[in-house]
Amino acid sequence: MNKRIRDYGINIGNLSMGKLNSITDVQGLKVGHVTLNEGEIKTGVTVIIPCRNNVFQDKLLCGLDVINGFGKSAGLIQIDELGTLETPIVLTNTFSVGDASKGLIQYMLSNNPDIGISTGTVNPVVCECNDGYLNDIRGFHVTSDHILDAISKASNDFQEGSVGAGTGMSAYKLKGGIGTASRLLAICGEDYVVGGLVLTNMGKKHELIIDGKKVGKELLKIDPSENELPDKGSIIMIIATDIPLSSRQLKRVSKRCIAGLCRTGSNISNGSGEIAISFSTANRVPHYPKDILRMKFISDEFIDPVFEATADVIEEAVLNSMLTAETVTGINGNIRYSLAKYIDELLD
Amino acid sequence: MNKRIRDYGINIGNLSMGKLNSITDVQGLKVGHVTLNEGEIKTGVTVIIPCRNNVFQDKLLCGLDVINGFGKSAGLIQIDELGTLETPIVLTNTFSVGDASKGLIQYMLSNNPDIGISTGTVNPVVCECNDGYLNDIRGFHVTSDHILDAISKASNDFQEGSVGAGTGMSAYKLKGGIGTASRLLAICGEDYVVGGLVLTNMGKKHELIIDGKKVGKELLKIDPSENELPDKGSIIMIIATDIPLSSRQLKRVSKRCIAGLCRTGSNISNGSGEIAISFSTANRVPHYPKDILRMKFISDEFIDPVFEATADVIEEAVLNSMLTAETVTGINGNIRYSLAKYIDELLD
Amino acid sequence: MNKRIRDYGINIGNLSMGKLNSITDVQGLKVGHVTLNEGEIKTGVTVIIPCRNNVFQDKLLCGLDVINGFGKSAGLIQIDELGTLETPIVLTNTFSVGDASKGLIQYMLSNNPDIGISTGTVNPVVCECNDGYLNDIRGFHVTSDHILDAISKASNDFQEGSVGAGTGMSAYKLKGGIGTASRLLAICGEDYVVGGLVLTNMGKKHELIIDGKKVGKELLKIDPSENELPDKGSIIMIIATDIPLSSRQLKRVSKRCIAGLCRTGSNISNGSGEIAISFSTANRVPHYPKDILRMKFISDEFIDPVFEATADVIEEAVLNSMLTAETVTGINGNIRYSLAKYIDELLD
Amino acid sequence: MNKRIRDYGINIGNLSMGKLNSITDVQGLKVGHVTLNEGEIKTGVTVIIPCRNNVFQDKLLCGLDVINGFGKSAGLIQIDELGTLETPIVLTNTFSVGDASKGLIQYMLSNNPDIGISTGTVNPVVCECNDGYLNDIRGFHVTSDHILDAISKASNDFQEGSVGAGTGMSAYKLKGGIGTASRLLAICGEDYVVGGLVLTNMGKKHELIIDGKKVGKELLKIDPSENELPDKGSIIMIIATDIPLSSRQLKRVSKRCIAGLCRTGSNISNGSGEIAISFSTANRVPHYPKDILRMKFISDEFIDPVFEATADVIEEAVLNSMLTAETVTGINGNIRYSLAKYIDELLD
Repeated sequence: MNKRIRDYGINIGNLSMGKLNSITDVQGLKVGHVTLNEGEIKTGVTVIIPCRNNVFQDKLLCGLDVINGFGKSAGLIQIDELGTLETPIVLTNTFSVGDASKGLIQYMLSNNPDIGISTGTVNPVVCECNDGYLNDIRGFHVTSDHILDAISKASNDFQEGSVGAGTGMSAYKLKGGIGTASRLLAICGEDYVVGGLVLTNMGKKHELIIDGKKVGKELLKIDPSENELPDKGSIIMIIATDIPLSSRQLKRVSKRCIAGLCRTGSNISNGSGEIAISFSTANRVPHYPKDILRMKFISDEFIDPVFEATADVIEEAVLNSMLTAETVTGINGNIRYSLAKYIDELLD
Repeated sequence: MNKRIRDYGINIGNLSMGKLNSITDVQGLKVGHVTLNEGEIKTGVTVIIPCRNNVFQDKLLCGLDVINGFGKSAGLIQIDELGTLETPIVLTNTFSVGDASKGLIQYMLSNNPDIGISTGTVNPVVCECNDGYLNDIRGFHVTSDHILDAISKASNDFQEGSVGAGTGMSAYKLKGGIGTASRLLAICGEDYVVGGLVLTNMGKKHELIIDGKKVGKELLKIDPSENELPDKGSIIMIIATDIPLSSRQLKRVSKRCIAGLCRTGSNISNGSGEIAISFSTANRVPHYPKDILRMKFISDEFIDPVFEATADVIEEAVLNSMLTAETVTGINGNIRYSLAKYIDELLD
Repeated sequence: MNKRIRDYGINIGNLSMGKLNSITDVQGLKVGHVTLNEGEIKTGVTVIIPCRNNVFQDKLLCGLDVINGFGKSAGLIQIDELGTLETPIVLTNTFSVGDASKGLIQYMLSNNPDIGISTGTVNPVVCECNDGYLNDIRGFHVTSDHILDAISKASNDFQEGSVGAGTGMSAYKLKGGIGTASRLLAICGEDYVVGGLVLTNMGKKHELIIDGKKVGKELLKIDPSENELPDKGSIIMIIATDIPLSSRQLKRVSKRCIAGLCRTGSNISNGSGEIAISFSTANRVPHYPKDILRMKFISDEFIDPVFEATADVIEEAVLNSMLTAETVTGINGNIRYSLAKYIDELLD
Repeated sequence: MNKRIRDYGINIGNLSMGKLNSITDVQGLKVGHVTLNEGEIKTGVTVIIPCRNNVFQDKLLCGLDVINGFGKSAGLIQIDELGTLETPIVLTNTFSVGDASKGLIQYMLSNNPDIGISTGTVNPVVCECNDGYLNDIRGFHVTSDHILDAISKASNDFQEGSVGAGTGMSAYKLKGGIGTASRLLAICGEDYVVGGLVLTNMGKKHELIIDGKKVGKELLKIDPSENELPDKGSIIMIIATDIPLSSRQLKRVSKRCIAGLCRTGSNISNGSGEIAISFSTANRVPHYPKDILRMKFISDEFIDPVFEATADVIEEAVLNSMLTAETVTGINGNIRYSLAKYIDELLD
């Protein structure tokens, strides 16, 4: 197992981390990968199953922020309107959003015989980054079956780095991929967890910052290769929590993801579609309501620690995604090196 | 050919219509259908090809309004961010957005060998309504090949009613589908056209208004069937024009579609995902810019007639979609009657 | 008392009205006017006091829609962020927003000694229309004291028409002003009321529609005067209800105001800043929270009647604002005639 | 003159700065202050005059981002709708937005006899932070005359720190205020400048980051005072440039301000209303258009250096605002120390 940023003695922020320092510290949440890694095929699928029970029948509150809309994610409009998440969240490459949506709908249909018959449709949430630098993205190698496969493999113990949707991704022109982290906090006497998961695929070498240290210029000196091309990447940032937050508050949480991201160096470049989605497992919204809904929320007066935890979790998850990713050679012989190769020299 | 609303002596608004009274009055624009109509399969695809030249290499300015985000359309986030349209617009049923996106990407790849290799990806725009009342929507009967087929069939002379994406749609609990209309106007001494196309699938009988006449209550008396179920529909409204408008102005135009829609009776119900997209053929945005871009726009001071034309075009297109649609019996023996069956009695 | 639209035998929509057919059918809500009507001064202030108790200490949930942002209303950004209303809502003319904001802050300070000392500031909500056609708007005739005065005069029985903020307003190039209406409905076995209040100052003669009847062309024939100038107006639409709705749902309600407005003819012209604000008295948000907040909401599955009531209430309130307003001659001898002068001929 | 961050040998980012390293490096732009600093009165006004000619008659393109809407700024809604700036931008304290709006309108009326008579109204842009910790904010000490005064004092050489609107502001629980910086860059062979000005009033001590160095914890050790109270601040960030950018692109630029801010430590706390406004002097939008408008823009493909310059300018301007501000004792004996007092120890 590759080392994470903490293994280098670096603690991001002031809050303590959860047991696994992972988004799966949120009870009931599971993550599954399908990795496609053969020759020019460097891509895959990562699925976040947000809670134990049927999320369509009992939806979760959810809010999002489109930081840079240069992206092709599916399902965002309805989250914004209704404030609910009713499917797992799938991450994959840009051209596979269609197949992934179909696979996710098929999964939902197989578990909910009412959809499309006695009730309306379902809103599949599929987010994407462009892995075309390493992957044969024009080959449409992800199929709808891969979604079912990733769901079946989901557990609370999952790999980071060049796996699943992260297989072919790049970050700061090094290897990117899947990263995660978590923080613990107490509000009104209750203990809660804020977990984050990122799919990193953005940035240029000269921008990189590690825990405040602006190492980009040095990195460029050590390895000046491949930094000329514009950033055509993206980053997807998912926050999960058991804190009782409304969809409005979860949108506010999503807006704080950018604080963590920018502290790793990103200037949110033109071509980098940056999306943050946050959901809470604390309230459930029934698909078939029988009466007035009763919910609980924290006051916005108590939300600052949640914002701080969000920024810290994203900053750490981005660094974890890079350090745990191994060097990958993909299509056309394109190479992305692992940050692990340079980290000792950069932190020196 | 079924009669349109004008054939009943009804002229919506004060402006004169274009030659075809169709969105294809905008030069270079073409519309193509694939209709799937066999037994329980009542669905299809409608494609709007927005201009003659390669729209990816020379994009069009575009703006949109998400009136009700209870919908699953693809491609909207990027239009909002970049203000450009770079593919044809595909309309289909809700569950087929994935396959349609894939088909549209494949079409774009075959015409643009640079996408995904020497340049970034492409933003497929696919809008949808839920035709599950008449169609076996769980069957995923639209394939990616149908997109290519619809594109190849596109012309400036196309059918309205129960065709293409409109095959299984409902409006005001009668038969809905595809409708179109256009208006002419002059700004700063230049002649222009505003064209609209709608895919109607919203509303309940008691709401229906025809050119101001609130006929809903009478309609419900004549035919009280099937009005109890909630509206799980949607409407997609497309405005095309040759007026030089910025993406900001095109968003403003999109916001006026609702005026026309509401004048046919809709109260924009909870389950009805209502999306308006407007584009202009007057400026082109090069994918590979070489220098500063030079563009022309009308002043917002001159935009009121465009808003009026937009409202009128949508009001007329909605009515045309219903009058030209024939009565259809679909899955489970569900029936939607044509407005043509009741119109004489209602206008009496 | 001038006649309202119901007095002409016209019932908008299918729902029954509240006892007063007024926004004050919502328990605890009061409205107060200060009318400035001397010579060239045709302006004033209207205040909506949303509930009985101190609204700063126990805020109301609130949501809004900026339909056309060509306007200068104050306080909207914070409502959108926090989803709460913490002051009365003040309506006045465009140039008096500053003085009105100051007066409203002063009122809040006098009732809340903590503001600006032991707690933060306060968000005054002031909406406006441009009454410059009839009023000496450059004269800044509204003072901060007028706000206190209007608050002190507030009651549940208030006048419509050319009063308060409506004194100098125009609608469809006739006289506009203040109008109101309400509807009753039941959700999950509970009875509720939806009340609306509008400040009308938009539109042109040829657009006017009365309960579906497109009377604009005839109105223009009867009185062709003053229709050439562009619409530089606006409309402010306020919805109050006791239905338990979240701020997200109240934003959705606000979005349906446009349905009622457009059915009176408006095409939402360029210069017409159109703002809708909705609030609910059912939940309170404490300024000094002590613990987790507990709230109740209806499901969005039950919200369609609320949307219908909203559209109907706005349509009726717009017509009431015009019918109850008397003909006014203002600055430069400019005249706006009352719709009451033409209504019999138009409905004939 | 107090030292700026560069005087400590710290260069933010990789781009070179403008001649003055100030927002006034943008040709024609001027800044003026009125400082009210007597006893418990610690407040004032800062005005940004965006260009030489009458900005109402020939408006500038403008775009904004409401990062956290917990704020009371005026004029934002219309900028978002029309994409233009038609007045100077005024900064002041929260309760003085009303008086400042009035003063700004009066200034506009005196220079434009058509406003409110032969044309519509005017949209005053006034942004604010809450200086109540040091200032007697309940005293309404800013008058409309102060706006005229600040405008008359505007020049391209202006002070930073505890001046103008910054007189009573706090940043990271130290003294905040006005800061500025600029960057030079070339696009398509043309030289341009990006200038930034901030009014800082946000953050807590433990968050502070100086050029990557996370000094907050050390700062808290050196001076643990006054860090318990929640952040009730705000920050206003203004970007000016001569790059030809559309209002859509200027909104994108505004969204990148947060990158610079967060790199100084902010987590965008609940009570901190954060607003970014960007305008360009390259195109003018005539109030009285005679014909089609012709404009020029850079392609979004060339915008990344603008984003990078924006982030760097804001990061530097925030630090400048703190270093140039002197220690201030205000109402109730409350003290905010200057960062200059601690900087040597922190950078050690």
